[in-house]
Amino acid sequence: MVAEILSVGTEILLGQIDDSNATYLSEALAGLGIDVYRRSAVGDNFDRVVAAIREARGRSDLVIITGGIGPTDDDVTREAVAAALGRELVEDADALRNVEHRYSAYGLPMTERSRKQARVPRGAQAIPNPRGTAAGIFFEDEVGVVVAMPGVPSEMTTMYQEYVSPRLAEKSAGTLVLRELHLVGIGESRVQEMVAETFEGSNPTVAPLAKPGEVALRIAAKAATAQEAEKMIEPVERALREQLGDYIFGQDGTSLEEAVGELLKQRRETVAAAESCTGGWLGKRITDVAGSSDYFLGSLTCYSNEAKAAMLGVSASTLEEKGAVSADTAEAMAAGVRCKLGSDWGIGITGIAGPSGGTDDKPVGLVYIGLAGPRECQVATNRFPGSREDVRWRSTQKALEMLWRTLRSAEDDDCRKDDS
Amino acid sequence: MVAEILSVGTEILLGQIDDSNATYLSEALAGLGIDVYRRSAVGDNFDRVVAAIREARGRSDLVIITGGIGPTDDDVTREAVAAALGRELVEDADALRNVEHRYSAYGLPMTERSRKQARVPRGAQAIPNPRGTAAGIFFEDEVGVVVAMPGVPSEMTTMYQEYVSPRLAEKSAGTLVLRELHLVGIGESRVQEMVAETFEGSNPTVAPLAKPGEVALRIAAKAATAQEAEKMIEPVERALREQLGDYIFGQDGTSLEEAVGELLKQRRETVAAAESCTGGWLGKRITDVAGSSDYFLGSLTCYSNEAKAAMLGVSASTLEEKGAVSADTAEAMAAGVRCKLGSDWGIGITGIAGPSGGTDDKPVGLVYIGLAGPRECQVATNRFPGSREDVRWRSTQKALEMLWRTLRSAEDDDCRKDDS
Repeated sequence: MVAEILSVGTEILLGQIDDSNATYLSEALAGLGIDVYRRSAVGDNFDRVVAAIREARGRSDLVIITGGIGPTDDDVTREAVAAALGRELVEDADALRNVEHRYSAYGLPMTERSRKQARVPRGAQAIPNPRGTAAGIFFEDEVGVVVAMPGVPSEMTTMYQEYVSPRLAEKSAGTLVLRELHLVGIGESRVQEMVAETFEGSNPTVAPLAKPGEVALRIAAKAATAQEAEKMIEPVERALREQLGDYIFGQDGTSLEEAVGELLKQRRETVAAAESCTGGWLGKRITDVAGSSDYFLGSLTCYSNEAKAAMLGVSASTLEEKGAVSADTAEAMAAGVRCKLGSDWGIGITGIAGPSGGTDDKPVGLVYIGLAGPRECQVATNRFPGSREDVRWRSTQKALEMLWRTLRSAEDDDCRKDDS
Repeated sequence: MVAEILSVGTEILLGQIDDSNATYLSEALAGLGIDVYRRSAVGDNFDRVVAAIREARGRSDLVIITGGIGPTDDDVTREAVAAALGRELVEDADALRNVEHRYSAYGLPMTERSRKQARVPRGAQAIPNPRGTAAGIFFEDEVGVVVAMPGVPSEMTTMYQEYVSPRLAEKSAGTLVLRELHLVGIGESRVQEMVAETFEGSNPTVAPLAKPGEVALRIAAKAATAQEAEKMIEPVERALREQLGDYIFGQDGTSLEEAVGELLKQRRETVAAAESCTGGWLGKRITDVAGSSDYFLGSLTCYSNEAKAAMLGVSASTLEEKGAVSADTAEAMAAGVRCKLGSDWGIGITGIAGPSGGTDDKPVGLVYIGLAGPRECQVATNRFPGSREDVRWRSTQKALEMLWRTLRSAEDDDCRKDDS
């Protein structure tokens, strides 16, 4: 099955936004074993969108379109798909109910413009939109399949995962199965070197993908069935886990905050955080996980020295002699928040995120992270490179890594005790 | 002048990398007043690259290609450009010297493969590559211009800026100037309706772009010079500001957290937050802004009732009778954190982010937001649709909007007082 991806939006052609939808769909279709031979982007221009759809249908079995199906006059994709297929638009009752429901929830009046979001070409299915108002389009005839989804990434990805992907999977001949192992505390080039010595060949393939402060190792196997592909992946995965197990915190999309949450739940333990330069980002990440209230008690972000003293009990002498950005303060913050909120684990982060505020002594990127637990307190001194956002992200990543590693080695200790 | 951008690389079609070169060139060409009507990406396949170049030349005056001009067998763009133009490849002496110089600097032997990087179609200019080995291609005939550059972003951007851009600027008629106004508290379709009544025509154009909980209005004007384009934008911008001024918090990329920070700095006031369902995200957003320590004192995320009572002084009777998710608790959290941290403004957020934890009485998406200030305390009751992430994002957005609106009306009051 050969597919083509078409992105609609003048803002893409002006370079105002990245065409991240096309990247997402490229990867997703590859995962289904569907070949993408071409990607295109056109502006919000009816004639050009119609022409692009017709051309794509002439070359490919599947045309996936994103963008331009909203309520405004700019949005021409809905009409263009109908024109390219030579069919009229008709209203879908379920899709209309979704639009009405959302407009009433926002307290907005329904207008003629709003209604058009519930229309699809005659003979097409309306794809439900659980995260927005505009219904998607799923059309199939003897020429091929045409899919249209919104340009808002969160709406598009939800629609794709819940509705489009399962239908395309049925149609695709071969299957590509991917297994991703997520690593922390090791660099991409080190992983690449270790992997290159062990694995060669084109099926399965093993490739590292770097993200800031994290590496994903992707094993990809292609076979007639998913079961066969899984069998090809298994020995490779086992060998990688033996070689790199110390760094692997999860697989297939597990985030570090989920891995930490899982360990805390197993141990029936809790965590609390005291943040300075990260400004609440660590708490935000921990609470990205649904159900985190089982183990997360809270996070106190204290920007001023006064707040650090009053809320966390960091002593005036520590702040004065060592400074707000110091190992002692990080340790006192970790211990302080653990005590204040009564958690099993306390994390303290203090550093200089930049872009200004650095000195020769304490440069931008210097971040101290304290972890206080039932037995002892540890502090890590870090020099993170990059922008304010990089420094802040890596600080939350390192804090989660410290907690993950400590919880895991505590697990190992417990196991050894059980064994003896 | 109409242009088309063509990216060559299988890794793009597999979604392994973002097509950031296309985004860069889109923006750069828009800045030269060159219209980009289409962007495409194809894999490292000779026939498909030739076909894509021919099609693009049939539609556009300028075809800019990136990727596939290196030394490996995968790299087919150089041969494909020559084939599409019906010309043979010939070696360029300067380009060859650059390849030789770089190979000897790296200590690598010159091979037949390396030499091909110095070849261009007969009649084309070789574009110098100051940051790598592969020479670019600049070709012009009565049909139009074809440019080919490397896929490595640093090599491509340097070539574009130093060689390609000046030559295209000579050919381009005009300049495109953009102004974006950022709005909050009003939906995209409402903005579109108001704008559609007032503005029509194709130069300048006015178009809304939706983001979750925010709308951007883009004014685009095309003229011979940037100054002339600015002059065309001015009356449109003034009219939009008169019509929609109540919702406009910033322009040209300003974030809502930056707009709030600007007002707080002007007023020399401070803010602190008490978060529950947002888990620290509001604090994270406020501290995304460099220099936020001038006005942000801290954020206390309290997930448990005990922490809400101990850290924020929310009374046991409020928590028991009204519940942790209630208007009274949001108000008590806002007032409590304002008092605890001694800030001018306090924000309290409590709600049910989901996906579970909702009841008939208090469904997922119900979020109370309190804002305590020097004079009074207000509470907003919200029902946000969407996923856990949507609910949490919109909660932070609404909290920032409340503070922004209140600070701005306080500004207006102060002005009126000054006037009287």
